[in-house]
Amino acid sequence: MKAVTTHQGTLSVVDIPDPRPGKGQVLLEVVRTGICGSDLHARVHADVQAEDARTVGYDDFMRVADEVVMGHELLGRVISYGPKTRKAWKPGTRVVAMPILTVDGTTHLTGLTPKAPGGYAELVLAEESLTFEVPDTVPDDMAVLTEPLSVANHAVRRARISKADPAVVIGCGPIGLAVILMLKARGVKKVVASDLSPGRRDLARACGADVVVDPRISSPYDAIGKHRGVITTLPDLLGLAVGSMKALRAVPLLPWGTLMRTADRLGQTPRGPVVFECVGVPGMIDRVISETPLRTRVVVVGVCMEPDTFHPSMAITKELELVFTIYYDPAEYAESLAMIADGRIDPRPLHTGTVGLDGVAGAFEALAHPEVHAKILIDPHRPGSGVVEV
Amino acid sequence: MKAVTTHQGTLSVVDIPDPRPGKGQVLLEVVRTGICGSDLHARVHADVQAEDARTVGYDDFMRVADEVVMGHELLGRVISYGPKTRKAWKPGTRVVAMPILTVDGTTHLTGLTPKAPGGYAELVLAEESLTFEVPDTVPDDMAVLTEPLSVANHAVRRARISKADPAVVIGCGPIGLAVILMLKARGVKKVVASDLSPGRRDLARACGADVVVDPRISSPYDAIGKHRGVITTLPDLLGLAVGSMKALRAVPLLPWGTLMRTADRLGQTPRGPVVFECVGVPGMIDRVISETPLRTRVVVVGVCMEPDTFHPSMAITKELELVFTIYYDPAEYAESLAMIADGRIDPRPLHTGTVGLDGVAGAFEALAHPEVHAKILIDPHRPGSGVVEV
Repeated sequence: MKAVTTHQGTLSVVDIPDPRPGKGQVLLEVVRTGICGSDLHARVHADVQAEDARTVGYDDFMRVADEVVMGHELLGRVISYGPKTRKAWKPGTRVVAMPILTVDGTTHLTGLTPKAPGGYAELVLAEESLTFEVPDTVPDDMAVLTEPLSVANHAVRRARISKADPAVVIGCGPIGLAVILMLKARGVKKVVASDLSPGRRDLARACGADVVVDPRISSPYDAIGKHRGVITTLPDLLGLAVGSMKALRAVPLLPWGTLMRTADRLGQTPRGPVVFECVGVPGMIDRVISETPLRTRVVVVGVCMEPDTFHPSMAITKELELVFTIYYDPAEYAESLAMIADGRIDPRPLHTGTVGLDGVAGAFEALAHPEVHAKILIDPHRPGSGVVEV
Repeated sequence: MKAVTTHQGTLSVVDIPDPRPGKGQVLLEVVRTGICGSDLHARVHADVQAEDARTVGYDDFMRVADEVVMGHELLGRVISYGPKTRKAWKPGTRVVAMPILTVDGTTHLTGLTPKAPGGYAELVLAEESLTFEVPDTVPDDMAVLTEPLSVANHAVRRARISKADPAVVIGCGPIGLAVILMLKARGVKKVVASDLSPGRRDLARACGADVVVDPRISSPYDAIGKHRGVITTLPDLLGLAVGSMKALRAVPLLPWGTLMRTADRLGQTPRGPVVFECVGVPGMIDRVISETPLRTRVVVVGVCMEPDTFHPSMAITKELELVFTIYYDPAEYAESLAMIADGRIDPRPLHTGTVGLDGVAGAFEALAHPEVHAKILIDPHRPGSGVVEV
């Protein structure tokens, strides 16, 4: 089959043997594969990621010197099954597949290891138990976005955000945009988005962001406006303690238990916005720490591959929380597909271009400039090397 | 009155005018004041802390060049009231007081600003609404520990820990010890404590830690042993996704909704221990990040005053949470006192020495060596300059 490999940072179109489905596996004809920001990272930073992966017991993460077929945002048609499969879908069925593959008893990250080649190819192997049928009503270009939306779905769930909490999304690349879609689908009333690029700010608006700012011109934290519980100064926090106890103790005959329960509720009230850091370059976390209100929960979705410096004393002074997030589970993946299918999410703004396998190298170049593209999809059956814009 | 001031890093016993209670204030005769680790910090790092405080809108935090009476762990006897007070306690009543004081309409941090002198003195001012009567059954040396226990109480609440979650406490200074006491009082079954000092490890045992380790000899994370949901490798996390979906899909006629709810529960199961970082020196946060299992919640209670370096990619690979914590609210403060009074907490192991005002400088020196002391209390009425060990 035809595939695109990366090796020492170079992307090449090659002919390699067709994969054959092993135990528990299904062979898919690739319909679409998304190009993920982490693929752009991995081409250059794979060795750092491999060391991180080794620390958590995964020794087969790709290295720059490996020849790897990347691609982990997978939509395909069922061709055939390996042994010990349920053969749940008829051949020809369109499925999305979580990028995990068990090979010889070890689970691998599809498209991020030489052990489990990914979807930058005409064919790809998937774990049958992690495939989900795509309803006929969902177009290919939307179904394949199940994966990045799952990353956002997981991030938003880990954020434990309520509809009334203001949200701030820093960085409107594909994951930032997916987070905006997911927040609005979950009913979050006020979503502020921030990006340096006018093109990405337009996409953020298209995804439903309520306020969109250029951080060089105005602060996204100022844009959340007045919200109950959002506190920006320490004297306000201290004043709340004094004021609440003074008021409660002035109530005649208030039982102590009631007083304390009310004081407790008031004490727990101060709560900043929920901030999603979707940029992932050194210094961004410290910048959020220095700019955000007290008691903010910061969900870190952007993957910064270098050591980073921050000020713990400021994070403590503000009582911040940093929630780091990357994976999603099968339920979140299936739910994301269902949200696309039933219209709760319209992910079309994310998709800005399509290429054939011969166009992947050009797509990587195009994605280095945020102004034009967000998500570029690979259609392995499309001829030519140009990026076709949506 | 007699008081101890700090100025340019030097502690001096001085005579200064008696304070007079203003609006909403009560004048207390100091019975005991605790020496806090943050006082040791502030003597040297006050200028850094003042800059952090300024960022959150508090301009009056002490600077090294200021002459300040420190002390914010306060137990006193009511002497007299200022205007606009309820005069809730009779003169002579013992009260603990939250270290917040409103002066000319601005709330201040008692003992950490020249605007609100603290308890290293014979007399101190407190906000009447933030004073709590101490039951006669509670000895002075225990009541004054309400404040550090409140820091721990707040930290443990912010940790959202369940009784079944294993807890790891890194660093067994007064705050680490208070966290251990609070975790055991809350019924947490397995508390692992780690400290380089044999003396502090003894205190950790006295506070109820179930396992106590020297981190040079064994890993506190290994010491938590097998716990449901604790996952240390990425292949295990991926394998859970594959295995759970394979098992669920093999159940005949299982409705899709039930399958997804079960998959969701399984997907949310992996959860590391809750780690309390109570050391607060550069590099500690990164060390916890590199050593702890996946999906650990790290509660940062130790205040690191310098910029610190960490690896966000590792925090993301492990999906960690960092919860920074420092304040407590009136309900948590009152609850901590109640926990001492009703015996849920016996804080005596924390208290290792007592000094008079003439002994404060010596106590600061003694506290630089963790082997002998944890918490030294000031009894302003005790003569002499020696530290009397408990």
